Parts: sequence; structure tokens; C-alpha cells
Amino acid sequence: MHAISFIQDLAVIMLVAGVVTILFHRLRQPVVLGYIVAGFIIGPHTPPFGLIHDEDTIKTLAELGVIFLMFSLGLEFSLRKLFKVGATAFIAAFLEIVLMIWIGYEIGRWFDWGTMDSLFLGAILAISSTTIIVKALNDLKMKNERFAQLIFGVLIVEDILGIGIIALLSGIAVSGAVSSGEVFSTVGKLSLFMVIALVVGILLVPRLLAYVATFDSNEMLLVTVLGLCFGFCLLVVKLEYSMVLGAFLIGAIMAESRQLLKIERLIEPIRDMFSAIFFVAIGLMLDPAILLAYAWPIAVITVAVVLGKIVSCGMGAFIAGNDGKTSLRVGMGLSQIGEFSFIIAALGMTLQVTSDFLYPVAVAVSVLTTLSTPYLIRAADPLSHRLGALVPQRMARVLGMYGEWLRSIQPRGQSAMLASMIRKILLQVGVNLALVIGIFFAGAYFAERIGGYLTTWVAEPGGQKAFIWGAALLLSLPFLIAAYRKLKALSMLLAEMGVKPEMAGRHTQRVRRIIAEVIPLLSLLMIFVLLAALSASILPTLELLLLIAVVAAAVVAVLWRWFIRVHTRMQVALLETLDNNVEH
Amino acid sequence: MHAISFIQDLAVIMLVAGVVTILFHRLRQPVVLGYIVAGFIIGPHTPPFGLIHDEDTIKTLAELGVIFLMFSLGLEFSLRKLFKVGATAFIAAFLEIVLMIWIGYEIGRWFDWGTMDSLFLGAILAISSTTIIVKALNDLKMKNERFAQLIFGVLIVEDILGIGIIALLSGIAVSGAVSSGEVFSTVGKLSLFMVIALVVGILLVPRLLAYVATFDSNEMLLVTVLGLCFGFCLLVVKLEYSMVLGAFLIGAIMAESRQLLKIERLIEPIRDMFSAIFFVAIGLMLDPAILLAYAWPIAVITVAVVLGKIVSCGMGAFIAGNDGKTSLRVGMGLSQIGEFSFIIAALGMTLQVTSDFLYPVAVAVSVLTTLSTPYLIRAADPLSHRLGALVPQRMARVLGMYGEWLRSIQPRGQSAMLASMIRKILLQVGVNLALVIGIFFAGAYFAERIGGYLTTWVAEPGGQKAFIWGAALLLSLPFLIAAYRKLKALSMLLAEMGVKPEMAGRHTQRVRRIIAEVIPLLSLLMIFVLLAALSASILPTLELLLLIAVVAAAVVAVLWRWFIRVHTRMQVALLETLDNNVEH
Repeated sequence: MHAISFIQDLAVIMLVAGVVTILFHRLRQPVVLGYIVAGFIIGPHTPPFGLIHDEDTIKTLAELGVIFLMFSLGLEFSLRKLFKVGATAFIAAFLEIVLMIWIGYEIGRWFDWGTMDSLFLGAILAISSTTIIVKALNDLKMKNERFAQLIFGVLIVEDILGIGIIALLSGIAVSGAVSSGEVFSTVGKLSLFMVIALVVGILLVPRLLAYVATFDSNEMLLVTVLGLCFGFCLLVVKLEYSMVLGAFLIGAIMAESRQLLKIERLIEPIRDMFSAIFFVAIGLMLDPAILLAYAWPIAVITVAVVLGKIVSCGMGAFIAGNDGKTSLRVGMGLSQIGEFSFIIAALGMTLQVTSDFLYPVAVAVSVLTTLSTPYLIRAADPLSHRLGALVPQRMARVLGMYGEWLRSIQPRGQSAMLASMIRKILLQVGVNLALVIGIFFAGAYFAERIGGYLTTWVAEPGGQKAFIWGAALLLSLPFLIAAYRKLKALSMLLAEMGVKPEMAGRHTQRVRRIIAEVIPLLSLLMIFVLLAALSASILPTLELLLLIAVVAAAVVAVLWRWFIRVHTRMQVALLETLDNNVEH
Repeated sequence: MHAISFIQDLAVIMLVAGVVTILFHRLRQPVVLGYIVAGFIIGPHTPPFGLIHDEDTIKTLAELGVIFLMFSLGLEFSLRKLFKVGATAFIAAFLEIVLMIWIGYEIGRWFDWGTMDSLFLGAILAISSTTIIVKALNDLKMKNERFAQLIFGVLIVEDILGIGIIALLSGIAVSGAVSSGEVFSTVGKLSLFMVIALVVGILLVPRLLAYVATFDSNEMLLVTVLGLCFGFCLLVVKLEYSMVLGAFLIGAIMAESRQLLKIERLIEPIRDMFSAIFFVAIGLMLDPAILLAYAWPIAVITVAVVLGKIVSCGMGAFIAGNDGKTSLRVGMGLSQIGEFSFIIAALGMTLQVTSDFLYPVAVAVSVLTTLSTPYLIRAADPLSHRLGALVPQRMARVLGMYGEWLRSIQPRGQSAMLASMIRKILLQVGVNLALVIGIFFAGAYFAERIGGYLTTWVAEPGGQKAFIWGAALLLSLPFLIAAYRKLKALSMLLAEMGVKPEMAGRHTQRVRRIIAEVIPLLSLLMIFVLLAALSASILPTLELLLLIAVVAAAVVAVLWRWFIRVHTRMQVALLETLDNNVEH
């Protein structure tokens, strides 16, 4: 059979990986490291040579490994977890990523590497490795301590930011330049796409999976899950985002399904098989000659990763109000790079914008920082004691006062509740507006094709435009009305809070009413201007626009209650899916 | 990324397969059928065209599907089950396979197809489909009835015979001719290889898996299992057998491990994923034009499969002593072809000895017979009633008497125990001799290479030969001694039974002793002649042979007890593995 060389490759990979991982397990090192070393042994640069024949097929399977890795990461991610993550995680992750990208970029420039190489180096250093951290904390039996929980929170935020970095880098690599306008537009479009994908996905996918699960067949559930996963990846690729993003998003959507546990159980062996191939394929690319030639940059970058992450994450944790000891532990736990770095390095290679040496350098730094992680975590407490002894007493007191001050300014009681209410309303308005914008975007995107279908009924292009724009408006009415009602509630709340009788005297009620009416109307007007700008290509002529507006107003007047009911039902369905899931 | 077309293929396969299998599930048809239809829809011969881009990679993955299918079949197979299967299964499976190969061959010749096409057609029709039968019996809720148990027994025997057929066909296809000598030599070598692989495998593999399982990591267990599976497949391929055989054997070996349940749970999703690709790939190859052109052969073969299997399996079951109703049910349950047929058809294609039309014809016949299976099972009882009314009373009485006669001649009480003892001793002697032959074969096979290593110490070729032959003899001594002791026990038993005092009078004791001594000595002599013939290429000169014999005799005299202890320990280890397994 013609697949024999392929089977031979798989046999070699799995046998060597098996032996090396058993060895590494006995040496108390992560399995991932064993895979990379196994790949290094098998690889074409070290004896015995010629063990792998069909490197292309192995690389294709390795890409499947990336997809399954990110899909699993998505399954473990969950929106609820993200909402629960505290300020520490956001501040630490943000500080870490900004600082590390900057450090990486500067190191790259210092070594006279190209702009793209330096930029990708920054991105490679930005994100820590969930796999390595979980393994290290497991081995040290520290998984349930407070600082470990903080680290997991940081990792969740990092996942989302990392996805954004990948999308940004793809855009920058294609256009070849970094402009702040492009960054904003990419981030904006990406957030829009993610919100729409999550809302639509969470409305549809868990229901579909629940239906398939009624057949009580693991095989059918698996085929459906794989079909959705690959299908969504394909859709995302067609929209010119990275497959990695698609795999993560569809995983996050399926994380809201009741079948999550079963899906995880079914996907686990497949992920393990392909991710083993992925990590071995990484080792395959390691060339000792390159590693020796770049020994100096590797050393510098390794030190920069360890110090930079300890400082940025530790500082982030401290700024968010944790004590010095915990902050240091968080920083030291996060001081390594891993699978995300490999994915970003691979992205640079497949986009052909980075040099050949970057990948092996990233892998070498990852191996070194992985090896140091458990020692760093164990060294955190002694170090914080020693630092505590070194820091002058007065400074220590100032630092301690910072935490107290922070706790004192945090909203409490009624104002805390109010703040949370305002946050919730703003989130809802944001989601509804994202959906509206998505509908108009889709209309503009498909305008030509829809116009083609319409020619039999509406010959004139202006009429077609009016039809598409009107249809988009009709579709988005439930969300617009919902956004308007939330905004009205918000402005009433603000009027109540902002306009006190002692200030406005007998005008209090009138001022309040004006504020409560004006804010939502103004925001609606701004939304329409925004929509008009966004859908410029399908905006009909002014007369038709007025006509549409009149029709829309009539429709709204007649169907107001119905629209509200439609929206409520969708919202209830969404919240049910999110809440039902709590049971598992 | 360059893997996008591949991901697109996977997405299309999984999405269409998902939708079609859900549809087929609602229509109460097997999932397998849904996959084939999905492949037909996606395929290049039916609109929409051009859905699949990277057909080569899909075919490679489909071959992985075959490996995982056969590996799973091996995991579900177990030696204990085979030992427990009654005479019914052996007789029915043997009759079925011989008759169906003959019918298939004759039909092929009748349509003026080539010898190889006709021979492969026969093999394609020989073996029924476990997947389809399990599904049908599940749907009809008949899984626990007696005839279902008989069918499962037949399927187990079919698996082993099917493996033999695949090995035979590979040999015949390569040499291009069917000679009875070659068939015997192939079957002999194959049985030898299987016995050695099973004994050595069951001694080593479950211990290795138990060791890996102590790490309590699904990932490491999976990687080890996959490494062993692919590695063994590769070894089997190097010995010029089919990969399918290797996958099945290593599965059967792992079936004796205590980790069986865990392994099955880990392999199931991977098998489901790749076997889905395998069955879809089958559908991809269906060309409506070919199906139409071969409509007449397809119809004839379908009828032949249904009637031939009902008659052969039914007759086999009846001859083995089942009543007419049960026999008919067994025959009708087995009246279809499935995954084994696809594997055999694919073998013919990859060996390039069959015509292009054979594969689609086999798939079409499989689809038609799969569709008819549930109806046939349900029709078995009414049909047997009607047949009972049609058969003349006297004939019915004669048929009924056959069953009674069969039960009357079956050994019972002491003689049944004796028969089972003799069977057991012969099996043990056979296994020990197979191992001895295997050792000498390996010696002859590696003679040149070992000779190369030896040249530094023993320059002369004659001395090298003597060394290798002597080492083989030394290694096989434990098994030779064990075989000798079993044979002695057997001959004492036979002497006791065969020489009755009423016949031999006062010479009884002497005759018995002569028989008990002569038989094992004669058989040992025959074994040595056989070994000498088998290892002709490494047989040393007569003088050296005599020297080796004297040394061996001395070694045996001194180490007799030690050899027995070594053998007993190995036997205990083997039986422990086989028995421990009962617990799960």
C-alpha cells in the first residue's frame, strides 16, 4: 500500500515520543518537553538521519494538532469564567503583553533583526504557557492556592488577547506596515466578529448538539462536533482570519453546551494524538547548528522572558491590590513561553514574513523557560522574604498603604450595586449594537450577490439598495429597540443619580426628564449616523431613505410589542444556555 | 496556511457526513450507510462537483481508518472468546467462506472477468459485516437471543479466517498464480507468525501497558498504544504481510491487557473519526456511470450473497446441531457484506491486480445487502414456519433425528474430559513447537547479519553456522523440553487408554511402557529432522553438529530442572495475563 512510508513516520514518531515522554515523566518534566526532544532526536539534523520520509503529511497533521489544541483551549475557556475573572487578571495580562511585546521588539532591533522578525519576537514572548503552568502547579501540589487561581485568571485573559494578537499580526503581515488606524480597525472588526459569532453560536450550536445527543451515539456526536469545528474554521478563514481563532471560538461556543463533558472526553484522545504530532514536528525543525549560532540571542531572550514576566505580571498583580508575596508568586509562575509562541512563530513562517532562525530560537527559549518554571515557583517565597528584608521599612509601609488605599476607594454597598448595574446595561447595549452593525456589514458585504438575485423583481440599482438597506433595518429593529430601551433605563438611572434636588431645586423633575429623554435619542441618532457611514456602499438616495424611515416608524409603532417579545425570547434562550450549563 | 484545502476537505466530509448520518439514523439505517452516501454526494462523479481538493491526503487518512477499524476489531476479539466459541461457529464460518469464495469465483468467470477479479470477488463475498449485524440486532432488540450469540461466534471465527484470506490474497497477487503448495506454505507461515506474535506479544505488551498505566496519564497511555500499534503494523509490513493483519493482531494482544477498557475508551473517538473518513472515501469512489453499466452483475451478486450466505451459514449451523429455526435465523442474519469486503477490494486495487469496476460493484452489493439485512432477520421466523409446512412430514422427522443422533454421539462424562485433556496437551505442544520453529527461522533469517557481527571472534563460516545453530538450540531448549514432557504425558495417557489388560494380558505393563517411551522419542526425532530441514541454510557440518548435540545433552542433563522452571514461569506469566483479564 502506498501509505507505508506515512505509517512508518507515525510509528517512529509515536514510539520515540512514547519512550522519551516516559523518561521525562520519570525526570518530573512536562510531557510537552519530551515530545520536542523526541522530535529533535528523530529530526533530520541529528543522527540517526532519514527516519522521517513524508514530512509534508506530518506538517499537515501538525496543523490539525494546532486546531485541536486551540479547540480544547476554547472548550476549557468559558464566558462565565471570563466575567468572573477579577481586575488582577486583566491588569496583569495587559501589562505583561504590552511590556513583553515592547521588550521583544527592542531585543530584536538590538540584534539588528528585521522589523517583522522583531515584531513577531515580541508577540512570541507575550503569552505564557497554560500547559506548562498547569503541569508545574500540579507537580508542586499548589493548584488550589490563591496565587494559582490568579494565574489561571491571567491565562484566560491572555487567551483572548493572544487571539487578538494573532489576528493583528496576520493583518500587519499582509499589509506590511503597522499603522495605528489599521490596528484599531482590525481590533474593532475582530471584536465585532467575535461578539456576533459568540451570540449567534451560543443561540444555535448548543441546541444542535443537544438534538444530536438525543441519539445517544458517541460517533454521531463526534462527527457533528468535528464538522462544526472544521466548518467554522473554514468560515473564519474565508473571512481572512486565522484558523486558530476559529478553532478557539467554536470551542468557546461549545463550552456553553450541556454536552461539554462528553465532548471533552471524545476530543481528548484526538487532541492528544495530533498535539503530540504537533510538538514532535516542532522538535523536527530544531537544527543544532542554528541553536549554536544563535546561542547569545537565546540566552538574552531567555533572561528577558523570565525577568520581564516576573516584573510585568508581578507589578500588574500588585497594582490590582495583591500583597507583595502573592504578586511575586504570580509573576514567577507566568515566567515562561509555550504553545501560543509556537503557533505565532509558525504563523510568521507560513506567512513568509519572518526569518528561518526565529522558530528554533522561540523553541529553545520555551524549552529553557519551561525547565526553569518549577524552580522559580519554588523560589518565590524565599525571594519575597529576602526582598522584604532588603526593602527599607518606610518604603514597605508605603507599599502596604497602597493596598489599603485601593480597598478604601473600591465602591461598596449601594454604589457597588449601581456600578455593576451600569456595567451590565452597557454590556447589553454593546452586544445589541454589535449585532446591528453585523447585520448592516453583512448586507453591504453580500449587496452585490443579493442585488443579482433581486434583478428579476427590482431592476433599478437604487431600488435594490433601498431594499437591502430596508431589510437590514427591519432585521435589526429588535436589537435597536432593545438598545434604545436599555439606554433609556440607563439615562433615567443617571438622571436620578446625577441631578440631586439640592442642586436643581424645583426644576429637579424637569431636568431629570430632559436628561432621561435626550440621552437615548442622541445616542440613537449617533448610531444611525454610524450605520449610514458603515453601510455607505448600500445607502439609498435621500428620498428612498426618508420613505424607508417612514415605513420603519410605522412598523415600529405597530409591532413595538412584538419586537420586544422577539428580543426577549432570544435573550431568554441565550441566558438559559449560559445558565443551564452551571449544572455540570 | 497551506493546509487550508485539507481543512476544507475535512470540513466538507464531516459536515455532510453529520447531516446524512442524522438523516439515516432517523430512517433507522446504519451510520455506515450514511457515510457511504455522504461520500457519494461529495464525490467527483455527482454534483456539486469539486468539493474535495486533496484526495490523496484523504486516502492516506482513510488507510489510517482501516488500521484503526482492524485494531478495534482486534481489541474486541479475544483468544478466550475464540476458545469458547462452539463447533457451530467453526463449521458455519468455514462452510460460508469456502462456498462464497467458490460462488464469487464462478460468477466472475461467468461474466468473463479475469481470474484475479473473480478470485477477489469470491474473497469480497466471503465475510459478513460485524458493524451492520450489531446495528441491526441492536435496532431489533435481539442482541441477547441465542441465534445472535451464535452469529457473534461465527463473526469471531470469520475475523481470523478473513485475516488468513488477506494474507493469502497478497501472496497470490504477488506471485500471480494459485498453487496448493503455496497456499499451504502461506497458511503455515502465517499460523506460525500469528502464534509467535501472540505468545511473545501477550508476554510483553500487557506488562508494558500496565507499567505505563501507573503514570495515570491518558496521554502517555494513548501515545504508547499508538506507538505499539503503528510499530507492529510496520514490523508486519516488513515481513511482507498486510498492515491490516498487524493492526488486528496487536489489537488482539492488547485485548489481554488489564487496561483494555481504558484503551477502548481512548481509541474509540480516533477510530470513529478515521473510519468515518474511510467510509466517506469509499463513497467518493462510487461512479453512477459504472454502477449503471454493471447493474446486472450487481443484481446477480446481491442475490448470490443473500441466498449463498443463508444456505451456507444455515446449513453450517444445522450440521453443528441447531434446530431449523435457529439455523435459518443465523443464515439470514449473516447475509450481507461490509467493511472486510471494502478492505479486500482496496487490497486488490492497491496491489493493482483487480479492475477498476470491482470496488464500486462491491460497495453497491454491500449497500443493497445492508439495506435488506433487518428485513431478512425479521422474515426468518415466518419463513421457517412456511418452510416447515412445505417440507414433507417424513423428511422433517429425519432432520429432527439428525440433531438427536448428533447429541447422542457427543462424548460425555469421562470420555469428554479425556478428549478435552488431549486437546489441551496438543495445543500446548503445538504452541511450544511453533516457538521452537520460530527461533530457528529467525536464526536462519538473521544468519548473515549475525555472522557479520561474529567475524571478529569466529572467522570461519562453518564455526559461525555452528554458533548460530547452537544458540538457537539453546534458546529453544525450554520449549523442546516442555513439548517432550507434554508428549510423554500424552503417550502415557494414550497407552493407558489404548492398551487394555483384556487384550495384552500379562504384557500390559510392558507394552504400555514401550508405547509411553517410544512415542515421545519418535516425535522428538521427527522434530529434529524437521528443524534440520527448516534451518538447512545454517546447518553446520556433521562433526560440529555432533559436538553441539553432546554439549546440548550435557547442558540439558545439568540444567534440566532450571529449564523446566524457566518454562513454567513463562507459562504462568502467560496464563496470568489471560486469566487476570477475566476480572473486567
